[in-house]
Amino acid sequence: MVTGVMKCLSCGYETPIDQHTILCPKCGGLLEIIIEPPKDFSLSKLKGRGVWRYKDLIPGYYKSIISINEGNTPLIKSANINKQLYFKFEGLNPTGSFKDRGMTVAVSSAVSLNYKTVIAASTGNTAASAAAYAARAGIKSFIVLPKGKVALGKLAQSVLYGAIILEVDGSFDVAMEAVMRLYRDLKIVYPLNSFNPWRLEGQKTIAFEIMEDIGVPENVIVPVGNAGNIYAIWKGFNELLKIGIIDKVPRMIGVQAEGASPIANAIIKGKNEPDFIENPDTVATAIRIGRPVNWQKAMKAIKESKGTAIVVSDSEILEAQKTLARKEGIGAEPASAAALAGYFKAINYGIIDKDEKTVLILTGHSLKDPESMAKADTKRILVNPLHIEKIIVGEINGFNS
Amino acid sequence: MVTGVMKCLSCGYETPIDQHTILCPKCGGLLEIIIEPPKDFSLSKLKGRGVWRYKDLIPGYYKSIISINEGNTPLIKSANINKQLYFKFEGLNPTGSFKDRGMTVAVSSAVSLNYKTVIAASTGNTAASAAAYAARAGIKSFIVLPKGKVALGKLAQSVLYGAIILEVDGSFDVAMEAVMRLYRDLKIVYPLNSFNPWRLEGQKTIAFEIMEDIGVPENVIVPVGNAGNIYAIWKGFNELLKIGIIDKVPRMIGVQAEGASPIANAIIKGKNEPDFIENPDTVATAIRIGRPVNWQKAMKAIKESKGTAIVVSDSEILEAQKTLARKEGIGAEPASAAALAGYFKAINYGIIDKDEKTVLILTGHSLKDPESMAKADTKRILVNPLHIEKIIVGEINGFNS
Repeated sequence: MVTGVMKCLSCGYETPIDQHTILCPKCGGLLEIIIEPPKDFSLSKLKGRGVWRYKDLIPGYYKSIISINEGNTPLIKSANINKQLYFKFEGLNPTGSFKDRGMTVAVSSAVSLNYKTVIAASTGNTAASAAAYAARAGIKSFIVLPKGKVALGKLAQSVLYGAIILEVDGSFDVAMEAVMRLYRDLKIVYPLNSFNPWRLEGQKTIAFEIMEDIGVPENVIVPVGNAGNIYAIWKGFNELLKIGIIDKVPRMIGVQAEGASPIANAIIKGKNEPDFIENPDTVATAIRIGRPVNWQKAMKAIKESKGTAIVVSDSEILEAQKTLARKEGIGAEPASAAALAGYFKAINYGIIDKDEKTVLILTGHSLKDPESMAKADTKRILVNPLHIEKIIVGEINGFNS
Repeated sequence: MVTGVMKCLSCGYETPIDQHTILCPKCGGLLEIIIEPPKDFSLSKLKGRGVWRYKDLIPGYYKSIISINEGNTPLIKSANINKQLYFKFEGLNPTGSFKDRGMTVAVSSAVSLNYKTVIAASTGNTAASAAAYAARAGIKSFIVLPKGKVALGKLAQSVLYGAIILEVDGSFDVAMEAVMRLYRDLKIVYPLNSFNPWRLEGQKTIAFEIMEDIGVPENVIVPVGNAGNIYAIWKGFNELLKIGIIDKVPRMIGVQAEGASPIANAIIKGKNEPDFIENPDTVATAIRIGRPVNWQKAMKAIKESKGTAIVVSDSEILEAQKTLARKEGIGAEPASAAALAGYFKAINYGIIDKDEKTVLILTGHSLKDPESMAKADTKRILVNPLHIEKIIVGEINGFNS
């Protein structure tokens, strides 16, 4: 059993690690879970694949583990962009995004604490993942949304997995406040939004898998939305450092989209706190967030790892999405492609040397966002089948010239 | 280097295994690749993950391997349907379907034979996979389609990966004939359609992975469209049997949709050849095929393994898709869900005993077909955020009662 403390990032209150605890019992602030690395931990003792391969480093008591074999995603070596570049393709998790790594831990916690209902205010990847894990656990899931603002098509995964959709009068913030109030006052629904620190205990296994595959890279580039993932990955490396398995932590580099870059702006301007953005806007819907819940955690990870943050435009994101697909054969959603756009910029700015081993976290599959795929330019030719040879030969010659 | 022969399923002509050969040099018929199992093969010597872990059993010479880390998909144990049931989730391949396993072998062959261009007549998973692997190889890909019959949205993946879309006047058969003629006459484009037997050499690794995970199950249930996959998986088990690593082959059970069931109809009626269907129709688009190219291979696999075939209706398929998502947390496209619908039917008919270890091949991800996901019934409630507690408590009580 992993021991340690939970520490509030707002008031500094400390309390022993307890699965019942999600927000600071004193001030309601965000909690960090700081584990005491187990002395007998050894890579050679690890068994199985995916998130629960690392159960010796995941705190909490689990009477039942709700898993859909998440994690164990490929670390794909770049074939055509840069030999020192690797893509951690989180789009190959069961519901198509990295969220599944955190959801297996959070929903297993909910079940182990005897909750029969989970809830999340989300329109996208979090909702899909929450609905899938709740379904597997045989418990009920509610997805809370601002009324009339989200097309049902965007919720197709949650619908298939059987979530109940609650549409509230008001903004997304109103939906999120309802979730927090339900957790604080009612205590019968387990919240799966990003303020739940237990999700990050699953997400940190991204670092463990990278380390087992290629050791410690110089840089890890992560798209930043609600900002939990960059911290989770840094936390994973940091725990390995504390155990003594690795001797350094990679630089954590966060990437945000121009229209939704409160954290990157703060980092770039040297400020200690972000200026929240009221109406965030970007084609990368998975990181279209103006008030990142985990901003304190993300800024800590970036600073302690001597990393930085980068802002990319929507056109850079869509261009990077196309480059990733057409140079590497990897289809990722726009938020993931932001990592590649950020990588190109970091090299141009001299932040990263092209000979440094660098891992990009591709957070979700391109299939998550069919509209963005169809935005790529297409060559489409109408042919008489009898003339197809001529067309093909012409195209090939054009290609080779 | 793996040796063996290529044998024509139509005229019986035999020729040594040669990567240049795709169709029978004598009659143009379909070829089987029959390998001589290497005497020094040993599971303990295998390295790496995915398709190329099994390179000692994959014939051909590869000067370059074009891989996107396909394969190594999870074998998910059923949590709520049946303890003896497992799901091989092929939707977690890089482009979202099992096609990637075959494409890595076929495109690596194309590159090793110095082809600069590949082609496929396909509207769906084959096109997406072909485009991705061609992109990674840095070669050109053409997708041939009947003009005006396929919405561009269905091709979003191929578009993102940069394939050139050729639309021909005529039916899908005309498109396919054009591809075959181009291969036979022109020899400058490498064909990636299902008549290419090299793809099956990659797909057979599904069997190897199942065996490494749980040994040999009693039954393997496979959705059947162009009918190559059920044969490929049987071939994989059969090769392990010949090597002496396993002592039996599972029963191969094919599932087809009511409106596209030429092979299943033939098996059920005890006929040796299918009656092709001119206008196949089913919600499971990935198996909406009336003239399965590999019917001879599929019928051989089913007969030699003492398996059978099952027909399921569209409503059974959609119901199974929902059951899979809501009981197991797995989102699969309708063609994959057909395997579960077939499983339920096989148990009802007494074809399978519920205590027999059975693996269902889930060929593609539900994200491949957003429309089908949105067809599931939804519970959608409009709430005043101040009354959300009351609604939730009511829903929970309803659930528990």
